[in-house]
Amino acid sequence: MSLITLTTDFGLKDHFVGAVKGAIYTELPDVTIVDISHDISPFNIAETAYVMKNSYRSFPEGSIHIIGVDSELNQDTNHIALKLDNHFFICPNNGVISMIASDFKPEKIVEINIHDRVESSFPVLDVFVKVACHIKRGGTLEIIGRVIEDFKRLIDIQPVISSDNTKITGSVIYIDNYGNVITNINRKLFNEIGKGRPFTMHAGRYKFTKIFEKYSDIVNFDLPEEQRNQDGQKLIIFNSSDFIEVSIYRSNMKTVGGASSLLGLDYRDQLTITFE
Amino acid sequence: MSLITLTTDFGLKDHFVGAVKGAIYTELPDVTIVDISHDISPFNIAETAYVMKNSYRSFPEGSIHIIGVDSELNQDTNHIALKLDNHFFICPNNGVISMIASDFKPEKIVEINIHDRVESSFPVLDVFVKVACHIKRGGTLEIIGRVIEDFKRLIDIQPVISSDNTKITGSVIYIDNYGNVITNINRKLFNEIGKGRPFTMHAGRYKFTKIFEKYSDIVNFDLPEEQRNQDGQKLIIFNSSDFIEVSIYRSNMKTVGGASSLLGLDYRDQLTITFE
Amino acid sequence: MSLITLTTDFGLKDHFVGAVKGAIYTELPDVTIVDISHDISPFNIAETAYVMKNSYRSFPEGSIHIIGVDSELNQDTNHIALKLDNHFFICPNNGVISMIASDFKPEKIVEINIHDRVESSFPVLDVFVKVACHIKRGGTLEIIGRVIEDFKRLIDIQPVISSDNTKITGSVIYIDNYGNVITNINRKLFNEIGKGRPFTMHAGRYKFTKIFEKYSDIVNFDLPEEQRNQDGQKLIIFNSSDFIEVSIYRSNMKTVGGASSLLGLDYRDQLTITFE
Repeated sequence: MSLITLTTDFGLKDHFVGAVKGAIYTELPDVTIVDISHDISPFNIAETAYVMKNSYRSFPEGSIHIIGVDSELNQDTNHIALKLDNHFFICPNNGVISMIASDFKPEKIVEINIHDRVESSFPVLDVFVKVACHIKRGGTLEIIGRVIEDFKRLIDIQPVISSDNTKITGSVIYIDNYGNVITNINRKLFNEIGKGRPFTMHAGRYKFTKIFEKYSDIVNFDLPEEQRNQDGQKLIIFNSSDFIEVSIYRSNMKTVGGASSLLGLDYRDQLTITFE
Repeated sequence: MSLITLTTDFGLKDHFVGAVKGAIYTELPDVTIVDISHDISPFNIAETAYVMKNSYRSFPEGSIHIIGVDSELNQDTNHIALKLDNHFFICPNNGVISMIASDFKPEKIVEINIHDRVESSFPVLDVFVKVACHIKRGGTLEIIGRVIEDFKRLIDIQPVISSDNTKITGSVIYIDNYGNVITNINRKLFNEIGKGRPFTMHAGRYKFTKIFEKYSDIVNFDLPEEQRNQDGQKLIIFNSSDFIEVSIYRSNMKTVGGASSLLGLDYRDQLTITFE
Repeated sequence: MSLITLTTDFGLKDHFVGAVKGAIYTELPDVTIVDISHDISPFNIAETAYVMKNSYRSFPEGSIHIIGVDSELNQDTNHIALKLDNHFFICPNNGVISMIASDFKPEKIVEINIHDRVESSFPVLDVFVKVACHIKRGGTLEIIGRVIEDFKRLIDIQPVISSDNTKITGSVIYIDNYGNVITNINRKLFNEIGKGRPFTMHAGRYKFTKIFEKYSDIVNFDLPEEQRNQDGQKLIIFNSSDFIEVSIYRSNMKTVGGASSLLGLDYRDQLTITFE
């Protein structure tokens, strides 16, 4: 069983998502289509990669993932379809795939060449849907494209380790629905460099010396409920994707704000961890 | 036939909803998954309950409802699965279920004990999905949990009736997409106390003496269309859930505002109905 | 194969969409339901028509489209179901259908008369769902309504052509997720009047003399990447629906803004094209 997922910056108001789904169902009445996200910030490849990286592997092997962010065909950017980590991806060759799954060697990559209209400002509808349905019907990649050796590589911003192994300098790569600030420092790197030493993390003008496993670890359950006042307190955790994340306990971006707004942390801002 | 519904505060931008759906489809390729809402205000149990209470019964009996709001497992809050009113619910034991269906006696409740990782900051993915798929496959609740007698009870804020039966004091429990202000006073209570007497409802500094059945009842259709000017007028109706609701005719929260912003009414604000 | 689509102004937070889907699945467990949009501006018929017009034809013939915008039954507005261009529509008789498909003659129209509760403030749930399921099961329109000759006609704002064929005066009909400003001047009209002559389009205080086929046509790919600075530049294109659209290259409404905010163009604003 395989299904088709959609990840775009189309938003949910316009006709774009509906038109794409209609076209898929017209070709494949019984297919399952799943929205991963349509609220990617316009043209934002880094956000797209973060969302895809943290979701595609929970889908069944063989799933077909359409990525419709910054996907116009032009002199610099062709369209590719590839099989990688037992999933199919259809996307612009703009580096996004290298940020999603740089650890995996693609099984096969093709440059899509079925564009019957060279000019299209809606390639997800005009091209990607046809490719996805072709793959879903069991067609080979060679039928819809020319085999190429590699995709465009973009280098993710990586944490920097000081030469004496006492300091990791990371940066903010994503801000989620709760305003939580996700860094590019993961548990594996933290443990390898830290080796269990005490540490101080600086994020903006705030310091942290303990990483929690889940949000409510900050709560002192020994106190009676009315004496606890953890709401609004800041903490850092290894999040469900195993990255270090700065959080405000029970934040709400639409009212009081979250870690990003309250601590003044934005995309690409730097954070440091210093080990003793 | 049964399906799985999702109600969360995850928002629609991040990878959370996609990851959960992928995990469900991996276990059950042919299942139907329905989003009830992913835009619950973060950690807001009262909103969750209002949305669930007004939607779950329109689903087929046997449906499995996953509630992912404020769902971290901790010392105070375990995870429960239960059958109630012929529907299954999987949720944190934080009182939300008592606000959804306090009128129904649960057929069976279990405290979920399949947590293979004690620490998880994403229990909907790590725990609730497994429980939902187990139930959908026809498994019994006893397999995934320990039978308990009752769930945590939270008392909804109830309207207060004056001792002489001349006054109902209610409060605002929800504000909808149009800015309509929903109160906790329903038709049954209004009729029982009022017994057909004339009344005045005070909401903020505004008064109402008539409750409409639908929004356009405020329009005077005897006038020619260009002489009617009902847009922007305030009214109260029994809404489709049979609660008294304060509304602005054809309001738009993104432009002119709705009843909540224009009349200055917010969650928990009090309103009174006085009978003559 | 046919499916049911939903286009409403309900938003995605409240229980409305979930309740409607639950009711459909209760009647038809195996149906496919597709959301076209639930973020139509409240009561906005013109937006509804633009979104439907640009999406319904990509769905399989025989699809059933529920339109739940400004759909209350009242003295002025009845409910209709019709077959047109091989698709079914269920909607209020408020003119919306004339703006979606005025070029097609409806095969059959009925005024729906199955309202068992005359008063309902939620007719999509109480009436449209029943009609859609009836049609999906193969039932005829005559069973659920009385045949009528025509639907209410609203005249879309049409571009005006000067008597000497040198000038087209159009207006803004939609603003999309990227802030792109869509006009009511399509490629066919532009070509018929212009006949290949040079032109100047005035939009606000800005001038354009070239219409691109896709957004990235504005990029000078002969320059090395670091010397191009097309981001934020304004352009006009024939969009994927073949209307002239004013755009800012790679705009983002949530940060820097899009064509609508940056060029000060709003719904109904006029734009002119003058041919030499």
